[in-house]
Amino acid sequence: MVTKRKFGIIGGDFRQIHLAEKIFRNNNEVFLFGFDKLNNDLPFPVLDNIYEVIEKSEYIILPLPETRDGIHLNCPLSSIGTEFNQKIFNFLKEKVVFGNPKKFTECTEKIKFYDYAKAEEFQIMNAVPTAEGAIKIAMDEKSETLLGKNCLITGFGRIGKILANRLSAFGVDIAAASRNSDELAWAKALGCKCLHLKNLAHEINDYHIIFNTIPSVIFTKDILSKCQKNVFIIDIASNPGGIDKNAAEKLKIKYVHVLGIPGKMFARSAAKIIYNSIQKIIEEENL
Amino acid sequence: MVTKRKFGIIGGDFRQIHLAEKIFRNNNEVFLFGFDKLNNDLPFPVLDNIYEVIEKSEYIILPLPETRDGIHLNCPLSSIGTEFNQKIFNFLKEKVVFGNPKKFTECTEKIKFYDYAKAEEFQIMNAVPTAEGAIKIAMDEKSETLLGKNCLITGFGRIGKILANRLSAFGVDIAAASRNSDELAWAKALGCKCLHLKNLAHEINDYHIIFNTIPSVIFTKDILSKCQKNVFIIDIASNPGGIDKNAAEKLKIKYVHVLGIPGKMFARSAAKIIYNSIQKIIEEENL
Amino acid sequence: MVTKRKFGIIGGDFRQIHLAEKIFRNNNEVFLFGFDKLNNDLPFPVLDNIYEVIEKSEYIILPLPETRDGIHLNCPLSSIGTEFNQKIFNFLKEKVVFGNPKKFTECTEKIKFYDYAKAEEFQIMNAVPTAEGAIKIAMDEKSETLLGKNCLITGFGRIGKILANRLSAFGVDIAAASRNSDELAWAKALGCKCLHLKNLAHEINDYHIIFNTIPSVIFTKDILSKCQKNVFIIDIASNPGGIDKNAAEKLKIKYVHVLGIPGKMFARSAAKIIYNSIQKIIEEENL
Amino acid sequence: MVTKRKFGIIGGDFRQIHLAEKIFRNNNEVFLFGFDKLNNDLPFPVLDNIYEVIEKSEYIILPLPETRDGIHLNCPLSSIGTEFNQKIFNFLKEKVVFGNPKKFTECTEKIKFYDYAKAEEFQIMNAVPTAEGAIKIAMDEKSETLLGKNCLITGFGRIGKILANRLSAFGVDIAAASRNSDELAWAKALGCKCLHLKNLAHEINDYHIIFNTIPSVIFTKDILSKCQKNVFIIDIASNPGGIDKNAAEKLKIKYVHVLGIPGKMFARSAAKIIYNSIQKIIEEENL
Repeated sequence: MVTKRKFGIIGGDFRQIHLAEKIFRNNNEVFLFGFDKLNNDLPFPVLDNIYEVIEKSEYIILPLPETRDGIHLNCPLSSIGTEFNQKIFNFLKEKVVFGNPKKFTECTEKIKFYDYAKAEEFQIMNAVPTAEGAIKIAMDEKSETLLGKNCLITGFGRIGKILANRLSAFGVDIAAASRNSDELAWAKALGCKCLHLKNLAHEINDYHIIFNTIPSVIFTKDILSKCQKNVFIIDIASNPGGIDKNAAEKLKIKYVHVLGIPGKMFARSAAKIIYNSIQKIIEEENL
Repeated sequence: MVTKRKFGIIGGDFRQIHLAEKIFRNNNEVFLFGFDKLNNDLPFPVLDNIYEVIEKSEYIILPLPETRDGIHLNCPLSSIGTEFNQKIFNFLKEKVVFGNPKKFTECTEKIKFYDYAKAEEFQIMNAVPTAEGAIKIAMDEKSETLLGKNCLITGFGRIGKILANRLSAFGVDIAAASRNSDELAWAKALGCKCLHLKNLAHEINDYHIIFNTIPSVIFTKDILSKCQKNVFIIDIASNPGGIDKNAAEKLKIKYVHVLGIPGKMFARSAAKIIYNSIQKIIEEENL
Repeated sequence: MVTKRKFGIIGGDFRQIHLAEKIFRNNNEVFLFGFDKLNNDLPFPVLDNIYEVIEKSEYIILPLPETRDGIHLNCPLSSIGTEFNQKIFNFLKEKVVFGNPKKFTECTEKIKFYDYAKAEEFQIMNAVPTAEGAIKIAMDEKSETLLGKNCLITGFGRIGKILANRLSAFGVDIAAASRNSDELAWAKALGCKCLHLKNLAHEINDYHIIFNTIPSVIFTKDILSKCQKNVFIIDIASNPGGIDKNAAEKLKIKYVHVLGIPGKMFARSAAKIIYNSIQKIIEEENL
Repeated sequence: MVTKRKFGIIGGDFRQIHLAEKIFRNNNEVFLFGFDKLNNDLPFPVLDNIYEVIEKSEYIILPLPETRDGIHLNCPLSSIGTEFNQKIFNFLKEKVVFGNPKKFTECTEKIKFYDYAKAEEFQIMNAVPTAEGAIKIAMDEKSETLLGKNCLITGFGRIGKILANRLSAFGVDIAAASRNSDELAWAKALGCKCLHLKNLAHEINDYHIIFNTIPSVIFTKDILSKCQKNVFIIDIASNPGGIDKNAAEKLKIKYVHVLGIPGKMFARSAAKIIYNSIQKIIEEENL
């Protein structure tokens, strides 16, 4: 059990607030940096100085991802940009740091990083809010019920499998498209129609709702031009996503590209998943 | 097939617009009254004068419900209140009227009303958007995923059954509470935990999310005071709903009471259900 | 709670044995008639004389159904035929009798019969073993998995709904055929393809496995001749079933007609359902 | 498409017969060895001489597994034992051989073996008949319906996941036990209760039906002694299975250990899975 320790939480979205609360409620001290946009009625201090937060803490939790632009810390709830620079890294030495900053790999040998988001277990559990969120988006953006719709899931990894599982109760037909024969076998075994990605062009016209999980532009101008005009594409793949956005806009294809669903839509559950992952690392590594 | 006929659509919400479009696309004439709030880029006329709409039409479609206050026509997309009075009824004579206005029962003998919302078939199909919408609300208002939640459905009629069916894929435990032994048998047969309503007080504390479908105040101050403090009650029962709202607010219980989910959240699907119902009446009655 | 009473159990299949055990374990006396084929290692007496059983008992439980041929008691576990005659009825007077013998309606006014199988609740719960059994039969008789099969359910009442619910996890496509528009609406709402029975001939060729629940010969020679040659029809409708058996045999259509699945395949569960039904009658009627 | 080639099918169970039929129907020649117990009304020759079969064929399909005792070919449909010896291997040279005989590894360098059962895709698809069969066994051996049962799945790999998916529609509670944290995360994400294998002793008493997929004796005397007396353990793990059989018999625990469910219970589907796997190897390797 994480208890009576000092945690510094640097940047990130609302799930870091829920995470801080959870750690705090377990009788730990918590210091935050990067949340100045919030009304400060939190039960733990939000400090202005990142170095002070690091100094006061034994354990530092970096945001997920650490940076979105490669330069600044990912601090959507802060009004100031904070460069993720060498000086911060110097302060991190001797600390237990949860995160995986690929940027300063040259100095990471001196800091022990524990990548809480890398574990297969974390990825599986994090696929749950992503899948639930994708279904909510599907219900939000159409003025139609899911019942009777033909749904296509492109990519059938963790998120695809869990999404198919949840969708299956809504009276929809589900197909999965992939290049990977194991993914296609899973889709078939779980009752989905299977479709090799190379045949996407011939089949794409059948689908009303498409969930994309492949982070590579498979919805090219050609493919998009073969979609139903009322199709709705929900792209939840990490950047660059799976859609040629210019083409989609010219063709008036309805789509959204949503990143970070767990943090945006289910912050408390997402915090719990991070908490469990950090907790497990602390126990297993005797930190 | 409904075709080459003249339809007057009087009042109602967005689903009536989708309904008008569907009827219009099937080569009928359509006249609307009660939609002056909309930008008039519709392909059919929205008139200012209800009597003109009635006169021009052979078939009149009333809104669902006809009135919410017992006095005025239910016209949420109109900026003017229109009394549902004797004069309108006089104009309706000789017309085929789809609706079931309980108000002027004394004159209804002279008008042939066809209650498109009464058919069991309509009620079953309309329970689908209601159930989907309730799930969306559950995902919207919590910062938590559904996974692992204990859900209670009070009342296990059409909506309860369909709701349980959809929810079942989300990794939740589902219980159903009812006074009706047939409803409880259905809940059990479909894999839900069963709970007699008279035992609600003893069990209510187990549940994170409650869906109420019983239009009678079963969530009294006493019951509410025994709920978890983080419970979320989604009341989709028709008026007066199932919650003592004053008590809920004093106890800071999170709840919503949502009426008319099909029209509000899935207008196009809801319109299709009305269309099919009217279509079937026209065929069966040779109208 | 049924306790310290004297029960006579007359005829029936294995579920009556499980029922006797359950009643006996609840501290009641139990006397049986009609089970002479069983090795008598039961903890309660099996008597040779039906009149003795009736005389010793306050409560008499008749089999389900009471008779299969209209003449004899339904005693599949007895080697002797016992006529269900006036003399038995004379003995039943003054007793509390659970059953619904339509035969001697002229004398039933003098006996108070409690029809434990009539309650909607009983029918719903009894549909569960029937549906599970039908799925087992489907897996038994084909050398193929269910995955990917097109299944048709004819009739969509209690059994049809529960069957569709269970089948849905097996990766099959499910269609329902009915004449009843409410049943078709239910099927649609629950995600099945719908098919009016009048169109059966045009569509029947699509299906690999058919579950019939309609007790009337809808699978006529004409319909059967349009089935796939590898179709398997599982007829679970009460007599006469739904299949023209002569035609099926001539056409070499594979089928089974199975009656009384609960008693044959899930005797203990079936007994529990009867027990609960009798228990409820005793409580509600203060017997 | 496999066509106009000569296939020798040596040993195996009924699925090899279905496989032979499928290959034959695709316009290939087929020769069989090891099926002398069958009435020879097959449309292709069953020969007495294994060497003749090999000589006549370009492609040889070995059984699955090749041997059960390490000495003889696995020929359950033959009345004679055939040693899997060096002479056979000498004949196999220059042939395309589908199988993976670990026995004669010293000579395998000279023969090109294609292990059709190794592919992840094959394993996933073969988990489907195994999971369906396990459910059928659960329904077969109890006189009770699945509804309401607490089911435990030990091991949550391919079979465990598919089994949980199918079981979920039966109104049961499903728990998964594993030592592997990824498997536990999958189980949780798919809505199962999770249980670390090290805690099995404390929790085992809760379960009515146990499906074991772990090929190592985890159901020791100690664990078995803590089970419910009415528990039913369905062991589908490969040898040695997961149950201490002596202990189970002494404790009168009801169990079955079933190997080769696909071939035994769903031979035609199992044949199709083998066929697809061989077909794919032929295409990809240009054989």
